Amino acid sequence: MTKPKGFEKPVGVRDYLPYAVDKLRTIERNVLDCMSRWGYRQIMTPTMEFYDTVGVASSTSDQKLFKLLNNRGTTLVLRSDMTSPIARVVSSLLKEEPLPIRLSYHANVFRAFEEEAGREAEFFQTGVELVGDDSPEADAEVVALAIESLKAAGVSTFRIAMGHVGFLNGLFEEVLAGEDQAQQTLKQHLLDRNYVGFRQAIRELSMSDSQREKLEAILRLRGGKEICDEALALSEHELARTSISHLCKVWEVLEAYGVSEHVLIDLTMIGDFSYYTGMTFEGYAAEIGFPVCSGGRYDNLLRQFGRDVPATGFALKTNRILDGVHGSVEEAQQPVLIRYTAANRHRGLARAGELRKQSRAVVTQLIQDGNENRTENEKLYAAVETFS
Amino acid sequence: MTKPKGFEKPVGVRDYLPYAVDKLRTIERNVLDCMSRWGYRQIMTPTMEFYDTVGVASSTSDQKLFKLLNNRGTTLVLRSDMTSPIARVVSSLLKEEPLPIRLSYHANVFRAFEEEAGREAEFFQTGVELVGDDSPEADAEVVALAIESLKAAGVSTFRIAMGHVGFLNGLFEEVLAGEDQAQQTLKQHLLDRNYVGFRQAIRELSMSDSQREKLEAILRLRGGKEICDEALALSEHELARTSISHLCKVWEVLEAYGVSEHVLIDLTMIGDFSYYTGMTFEGYAAEIGFPVCSGGRYDNLLRQFGRDVPATGFALKTNRILDGVHGSVEEAQQPVLIRYTAANRHRGLARAGELRKQSRAVVTQLIQDGNENRTENEKLYAAVETFS
Repeated sequence: MTKPKGFEKPVGVRDYLPYAVDKLRTIERNVLDCMSRWGYRQIMTPTMEFYDTVGVASSTSDQKLFKLLNNRGTTLVLRSDMTSPIARVVSSLLKEEPLPIRLSYHANVFRAFEEEAGREAEFFQTGVELVGDDSPEADAEVVALAIESLKAAGVSTFRIAMGHVGFLNGLFEEVLAGEDQAQQTLKQHLLDRNYVGFRQAIRELSMSDSQREKLEAILRLRGGKEICDEALALSEHELARTSISHLCKVWEVLEAYGVSEHVLIDLTMIGDFSYYTGMTFEGYAAEIGFPVCSGGRYDNLLRQFGRDVPATGFALKTNRILDGVHGSVEEAQQPVLIRYTAANRHRGLARAGELRKQSRAVVTQLIQDGNENRTENEKLYAAVETFS
Repeated sequence: MTKPKGFEKPVGVRDYLPYAVDKLRTIERNVLDCMSRWGYRQIMTPTMEFYDTVGVASSTSDQKLFKLLNNRGTTLVLRSDMTSPIARVVSSLLKEEPLPIRLSYHANVFRAFEEEAGREAEFFQTGVELVGDDSPEADAEVVALAIESLKAAGVSTFRIAMGHVGFLNGLFEEVLAGEDQAQQTLKQHLLDRNYVGFRQAIRELSMSDSQREKLEAILRLRGGKEICDEALALSEHELARTSISHLCKVWEVLEAYGVSEHVLIDLTMIGDFSYYTGMTFEGYAAEIGFPVCSGGRYDNLLRQFGRDVPATGFALKTNRILDGVHGSVEEAQQPVLIRYTAANRHRGLARAGELRKQSRAVVTQLIQDGNENRTENEKLYAAVETFS
């Protein structure tokens, strides 16, 4: 192990120079303002949480949690998302608050990667949780708000793919009852979006042709509202049918919001199936190769913190938007440079104070031996005023 | 060790509920805007840094650093301040940038405490660094900006105490040449503001009466500009005299800024003497029992990162201001509640969209079995509109 050089920083973390900060702050402010107009109030939680509660309850797999020991020998994690910390707060500090509770956040989260270069170990998420409402209305609200939030973040062309883990769970139970290992394999292929692997696995598993057809048909269940009818024709399983019926109602509400043009039903989408319990969705932008937001319903999480209430929400993947979107960033205003001799200091600084009161950015400089003729950086300034 | 309960979080960290977030965000925005008007551009750095570089270079004592191991077995720290990360960036990413460089930040920082209850393990600092200018003008600029930043943060009544570590180092060298242990003891008493202990130590050390008088006189060196003359009368040591001369020039510039009424010269103030190399200062607010900001010159830090340039800066102790100041926080606007029946969903949601376009906060609710007459929470809303 070599000693890191002075200019190095750990793998997977980054510095944001002023231009990037301006861009990130613009996204942060515009998205949080948008969420606030939808009645979501901002919350902040600590960077460190107990591994045994928030860490274990999070949707992040154990080996991706950043663990550390505190002075008492208790294992802590650097938060890997904001959903489980918010579940903790809703179940403790906010336990008397009437439902539904609408909360928003903008926070850095952490992921440990086993020597995996190129993956970020710290990045920002900007999102909401809507707690205490299990209706299709609530799911549609968070999808519609995700759409408005992407627009507020400057993402111009995007699509939301919406699925339901209950449909797949029901259909798999119907076709592969009791075959947990086979179900798990097929779900993992869908999670990885490995459709070739999915088809291959279906061919290799022993089942009837009609079973095989049903499973293969899943891959075609992507499109508009008509997909609901096709899915209903495919399965007799009650969970699958109530799930589709729920999704269909979500679609209706999205039509009422006037945003269904941005939405695609994609029943191959399973989200993180150990965590989500209902509708799930992901957002894809034209210019970015990875999802720019993800969300869904997680009705079992709050129970782990002692408050058994349903919840739904989403998070923007803010860094991907920052890196991928060439939207309209407010260019930082160039400052005025005020130069003064020692004898004219009062006048120079008074003028600087005056301009700052008018919200102008001002940099001041004493003229002295060695910098009398300093002009090389004048292009950095909107104007130069000299008091001599 | 007992398993933590669901509602618990680690010692020393906290949740910020919406009201506190609104207040913190107001301080953050107002202070950063103020710094931006002084030509300081915002920077962000990672939460985790290498222990061997940024950790060791920071002003935080080793046992207060929050350490963790990454997957490669390298020791990382959670940043304990922003000054050494910024020194790293100025020496690497910004190494071609012309001097002086003005940078601002608002960031959470971490301190590990040995079972010390009541101390915060994670808290916010909002500050600036002015790199590449060793003049009294630069020191005065950061003191004047600290004063404007405290005002921007809503702190109405405060005092800045300003000292110089060079004066004390020079005077101690003059009086106690070679007696490192005695010097260290006396400096520690000053750092702890333990003047009783300081006097006691002077009595116990073997020295002449005139030496004793000089050391005791330090405790009286607190006041206005006249303190500079008193200090000059006290010491013949060159470092002590050039330090006072520098401080005197800083005072003159502060007069030109029109802010010297907020400043007190306090030569008993030594700051963190292993870290600061020149002028140091602390801000005290009428309503808060601890310093609300601290800063000073640290000309040796950047050299450790390979760019040997002087620097000066300060940080507001943002959490203390948040907790202690009952300033003017923008009350979050109460939302409008829009209720609609399923048949009137389009109309209700369209009205919500309209109000949101006007920057109003709106919460929507479907009227259904069980909530038709729900009025108990209406006091939470600015208005209720019903579409049925």
